[in-house]
Amino acid sequence: MGRPDGRAPDELRPVKLTRQWSIHPEGSVLVEFGATRVLCTASVTEGVPRWRKGSGLGWVTSEYSMLPRATTTRSDRESIKGRVGGRTHEISRLIGRSLRACIDLKALGENSIVLDCDVLQADGGTRTAAITGAYVALHDAVSWMAKRGLLAGKPADAVHRSVAAVSVGVIDGQPRLDLCYEEDVAAEVDMNIVCTGAGDFVEVQGTGESGVFDRAQLDALLDLGVAGCGQLADLQKAALS
Amino acid sequence: MGRPDGRAPDELRPVKLTRQWSIHPEGSVLVEFGATRVLCTASVTEGVPRWRKGSGLGWVTSEYSMLPRATTTRSDRESIKGRVGGRTHEISRLIGRSLRACIDLKALGENSIVLDCDVLQADGGTRTAAITGAYVALHDAVSWMAKRGLLAGKPADAVHRSVAAVSVGVIDGQPRLDLCYEEDVAAEVDMNIVCTGAGDFVEVQGTGESGVFDRAQLDALLDLGVAGCGQLADLQKAALS
Amino acid sequence: MGRPDGRAPDELRPVKLTRQWSIHPEGSVLVEFGATRVLCTASVTEGVPRWRKGSGLGWVTSEYSMLPRATTTRSDRESIKGRVGGRTHEISRLIGRSLRACIDLKALGENSIVLDCDVLQADGGTRTAAITGAYVALHDAVSWMAKRGLLAGKPADAVHRSVAAVSVGVIDGQPRLDLCYEEDVAAEVDMNIVCTGAGDFVEVQGTGESGVFDRAQLDALLDLGVAGCGQLADLQKAALS
Amino acid sequence: MGRPDGRAPDELRPVKLTRQWSIHPEGSVLVEFGATRVLCTASVTEGVPRWRKGSGLGWVTSEYSMLPRATTTRSDRESIKGRVGGRTHEISRLIGRSLRACIDLKALGENSIVLDCDVLQADGGTRTAAITGAYVALHDAVSWMAKRGLLAGKPADAVHRSVAAVSVGVIDGQPRLDLCYEEDVAAEVDMNIVCTGAGDFVEVQGTGESGVFDRAQLDALLDLGVAGCGQLADLQKAALS
Amino acid sequence: MGRPDGRAPDELRPVKLTRQWSIHPEGSVLVEFGATRVLCTASVTEGVPRWRKGSGLGWVTSEYSMLPRATTTRSDRESIKGRVGGRTHEISRLIGRSLRACIDLKALGENSIVLDCDVLQADGGTRTAAITGAYVALHDAVSWMAKRGLLAGKPADAVHRSVAAVSVGVIDGQPRLDLCYEEDVAAEVDMNIVCTGAGDFVEVQGTGESGVFDRAQLDALLDLGVAGCGQLADLQKAALS
Amino acid sequence: MGRPDGRAPDELRPVKLTRQWSIHPEGSVLVEFGATRVLCTASVTEGVPRWRKGSGLGWVTSEYSMLPRATTTRSDRESIKGRVGGRTHEISRLIGRSLRACIDLKALGENSIVLDCDVLQADGGTRTAAITGAYVALHDAVSWMAKRGLLAGKPADAVHRSVAAVSVGVIDGQPRLDLCYEEDVAAEVDMNIVCTGAGDFVEVQGTGESGVFDRAQLDALLDLGVAGCGQLADLQKAALS
Repeated sequence: MGRPDGRAPDELRPVKLTRQWSIHPEGSVLVEFGATRVLCTASVTEGVPRWRKGSGLGWVTSEYSMLPRATTTRSDRESIKGRVGGRTHEISRLIGRSLRACIDLKALGENSIVLDCDVLQADGGTRTAAITGAYVALHDAVSWMAKRGLLAGKPADAVHRSVAAVSVGVIDGQPRLDLCYEEDVAAEVDMNIVCTGAGDFVEVQGTGESGVFDRAQLDALLDLGVAGCGQLADLQKAALS
Repeated sequence: MGRPDGRAPDELRPVKLTRQWSIHPEGSVLVEFGATRVLCTASVTEGVPRWRKGSGLGWVTSEYSMLPRATTTRSDRESIKGRVGGRTHEISRLIGRSLRACIDLKALGENSIVLDCDVLQADGGTRTAAITGAYVALHDAVSWMAKRGLLAGKPADAVHRSVAAVSVGVIDGQPRLDLCYEEDVAAEVDMNIVCTGAGDFVEVQGTGESGVFDRAQLDALLDLGVAGCGQLADLQKAALS
Repeated sequence: MGRPDGRAPDELRPVKLTRQWSIHPEGSVLVEFGATRVLCTASVTEGVPRWRKGSGLGWVTSEYSMLPRATTTRSDRESIKGRVGGRTHEISRLIGRSLRACIDLKALGENSIVLDCDVLQADGGTRTAAITGAYVALHDAVSWMAKRGLLAGKPADAVHRSVAAVSVGVIDGQPRLDLCYEEDVAAEVDMNIVCTGAGDFVEVQGTGESGVFDRAQLDALLDLGVAGCGQLADLQKAALS
Repeated sequence: MGRPDGRAPDELRPVKLTRQWSIHPEGSVLVEFGATRVLCTASVTEGVPRWRKGSGLGWVTSEYSMLPRATTTRSDRESIKGRVGGRTHEISRLIGRSLRACIDLKALGENSIVLDCDVLQADGGTRTAAITGAYVALHDAVSWMAKRGLLAGKPADAVHRSVAAVSVGVIDGQPRLDLCYEEDVAAEVDMNIVCTGAGDFVEVQGTGESGVFDRAQLDALLDLGVAGCGQLADLQKAALS
Repeated sequence: MGRPDGRAPDELRPVKLTRQWSIHPEGSVLVEFGATRVLCTASVTEGVPRWRKGSGLGWVTSEYSMLPRATTTRSDRESIKGRVGGRTHEISRLIGRSLRACIDLKALGENSIVLDCDVLQADGGTRTAAITGAYVALHDAVSWMAKRGLLAGKPADAVHRSVAAVSVGVIDGQPRLDLCYEEDVAAEVDMNIVCTGAGDFVEVQGTGESGVFDRAQLDALLDLGVAGCGQLADLQKAALS
Repeated sequence: MGRPDGRAPDELRPVKLTRQWSIHPEGSVLVEFGATRVLCTASVTEGVPRWRKGSGLGWVTSEYSMLPRATTTRSDRESIKGRVGGRTHEISRLIGRSLRACIDLKALGENSIVLDCDVLQADGGTRTAAITGAYVALHDAVSWMAKRGLLAGKPADAVHRSVAAVSVGVIDGQPRLDLCYEEDVAAEVDMNIVCTGAGDFVEVQGTGESGVFDRAQLDALLDLGVAGCGQLADLQKAALS
């Protein structure tokens, strides 16, 4: 059985990275992986969280959220429920960790960058699209800091590697790259891979959603994911040049 | 002193109503009043709130929210603060009331429509843009219901009038239409006017932000607002045809 | 059809302003508009909210609330629900804005006055009664400050105008002043008007609860409201002398 | 050293029980112990909490709260803090338990009575005043039920005993009845005693606030408290006749 | 009818106090009253709550909680419900007050000790077991402070008396010491008694759960409780030597 | 540099699985990985969450929490903060997913099992200890259901495979099994591996905490983790026989 949109198993969806989508943030990217559409903004603020004061280091963190009707059926707002759900927490933490892997926190001085990733439309892979887009927004925010003399050293030293992410999974026994929603819910194994531009791993998360997986399957998924991240790294480079 | 963007005092900003901006909702409109950009989605759900069950009537409600970096400086998410702020509450209630003025709740049967108005970018007038856009999204959602046989009667009877809104204010003693953010913070009097396509009032809210206002000023603002709403009603009609 | 209590359309309910109803607050007024009974207390505290520090200006704010059985049926406490509702937020903000219109925040120095308006018994018009009573409580608190040398200048300069509020509405096509609860729920148009003692507007909020209204109706309601606020201003003056 | 208001050690403050203070509730009593002023309302509602359904028994519960400026300095509202404090919880539970001791829950059928005790002005002994007043409000609510045929049996069987409460304490080594705030904060031992009209104990809570107490002191306080509750029972009887 | 476990009416359950049950806290005691099992830890932290700063005095407070399946049926976590319940609040406050009765807060300097009492298994008397165990944990924490030179004076002066607690109650008309859960739910009168090693009262809380009680019953319960606390004081002494 | 406790790089800490540690739950295991100590209880309840009703399937979920002083310094309770943190959410979800991999939800009928994993003492690897212990508690709960005739089929079919988990990491370039806290904070790469008794993967989560990792490192960690899980599976088998 082929993929819903006719792609090859190792083919990404059309990816678009639109910089400066908003006028206010220091970095702002609308990232699209097919119909998945995430607005990533990078906000530079003076100062760092209390537990970090006096360290001479900056901080990068992220908040992920979904508009209530980004999905096929409407979900309740977390603001109205009065609490952030487990899935939201988990993804926000993943994005934050991933982006901290590409930045020299010393170069920021005691300043913070918040990466807000708001899903405007969801069709699978929202967290990996968010990481991929947030990298570009972060890069723009660091350049903004450099122009204002807020950076110790050059932007290229502050953002010393690129970071991108993609989902992979096994559907009907077949390893596939960059799952859309329809594939995501059908996947036997589901994996998110975050890599640097050099092809090293930043984070690997694999789950046997409706079963278990063996080493051979894991290896196949890792191969697919690394290759996909490589293509995304090229697209990020192109967007930033 | 002229307006920051050179407009005439009675001139609207460029207004754009993009229907079907998202693929999932039953109605979905990106509304732009200059740099203000609000995504309005209409979600149809079966059933009504508990207090309305058995009435035979439907329900229309609204939730307004702002992305954290829709503004010049980042604000904290209400989901993380764990509560919805007073301003958010106030605007959500205003949008809900305004849209209920244009719909026959009997025609909906015991079904609900939620109008989510998420501000992606803010430059003044977000609540009036939201009402203006939400009307078009609501219209599309009602047509969607009609196509599925969920509506009692014709869409034109269910949505029996149009509703649009605009802000007006006094800056440096001069009454002006459709204030941008820079004008909004400088306004001595600030007013939001919600009108039907026929020019009747649905809601009038005027505040002497840094002073008081007399009957003559109030009259001048009402004139400006009614005229502005008339132009918006024409734009809504054009968008829907 | 006449009014439930036989009043003329332009007649206020019996209004009572009892100063020093409580012993602890710096200002404390029990205000009654017919059966509506609101306890307004003014609390002077040193310091201002963080965002205002160093401005040299004081701050006046308000919190409105209803006892659970102020109404015909009991409502749940917001403390137990764990959040303040939209209506409460909206009214608190309205009272705060209205009272700030009558005070010179510079004269307060960096001190705050909180106006707590707790509805002990509700029969329509609780927010307008609250504003009318809070003005008198605020006036007493400012006099208290003057006696203790906490005020820059004279009380009459600090509270440079009076503020009162009244509801108006259209019932069975007839414009009426100061609606009781029975009229409030039946009103086609409902309006709250806040005026200074000099007859200028501080705030105007009109809603077509179950319909829309035209300019003529709006004008009639404004006339009624301005006249009603004038009578309330006289009662405030009498209470304070 | 004598008492601040010149009372004898075993003397109550002037106690006033004003029935029907509010128009809406089924029972409503303004109770005053000196300057302490608590509004006690009893609300009858159909049905019982979920865990009690099908038992054939009714339920009586209580919610205690203080207005923010009932005290000498203003305290923050629990609705705004988003949670009910420990002291509030503790007192609400005490009032509920105490009042359940005087009522036959079977006679209520599956109906509930909520006793709201809102402190309008505090000068020590708010919880004991609340219990004393709530008994009278509960009695009125039960009579209201009887008139509407909602009661199994006669009111006198449903409310089969009276309940009153008073505080006692040791100040400067002297046992005293019905402490005002000034005495309350100075007390070495502080005790609340809830008794039936027949002089039996419903609840006894004694605390060595700034020390410990021996059996002789405990006995002296119990004697004082029982006598005080006896006087309060007479006042309740008088108020109800 | 005899007791479920064959004890004499004035007999404690087997009591065990295991010191240093955990490796991290400054004091840590697993206390067992029969099957009731509470982990009491004492945490020393620098500084005191804001309202106490500059007083030169330390602070001792407590937090009580139950694991969700400490009981026969599972209860929901308060962390997930988003709020601490009334019973939890009440018991935490009781433990804190009781332990403050045995310590000289001046000797602590401006340092705090938090006593966490987590019920791992519940079979009645969790609050009294918690107080009894927390005393031993507090004693160990104070010794720890002394060794590090954080204490003004000797440990024996800082902890100048011991504190223990036990429940007593009337079941089938018979006064009994140290109720297990089965007795607790059947008790007509239920009382918690907190005493010093010298036999003075720190706190006395008696409730007629399903009735009322007279002075003779109260006296019998006080006798039982004082004797029980005496035995517990001996066990505490033995554990600490 | 050797390991803090002298273990070989591929050596587990002493592991203990104590069944029936508590008397109330249907399954209850105290699991110890060295000084890490987690109480895992399995609670069987009738019914399933609302979204699962009518499916004929059961549900297994988990809640993870830490006692405030399980760690070297005290952390605030989530019940008092009023919300569950991101880390807690993330781990609870991981445990739930992992345990659902070993159970046939059809065999449970429409019943639920909640796995509460409460960390009594933490020294690294709390989530992997929790999964390993929760499996044994779940197994006991399923046997309990079988004895009461609540299970469709045999326990061995309901729990059709075993599940265990272990942490692995790279410290000073050396891959190590089962990190203690001191190693955990120093790890360059940190990974949690969940395997079945047959050696298949259920979940793989690897993070470059302070760097990135290549394929060779990933492979070495996977080898270590699979071997460690094999040993844990043997210990689980022994505990259950």
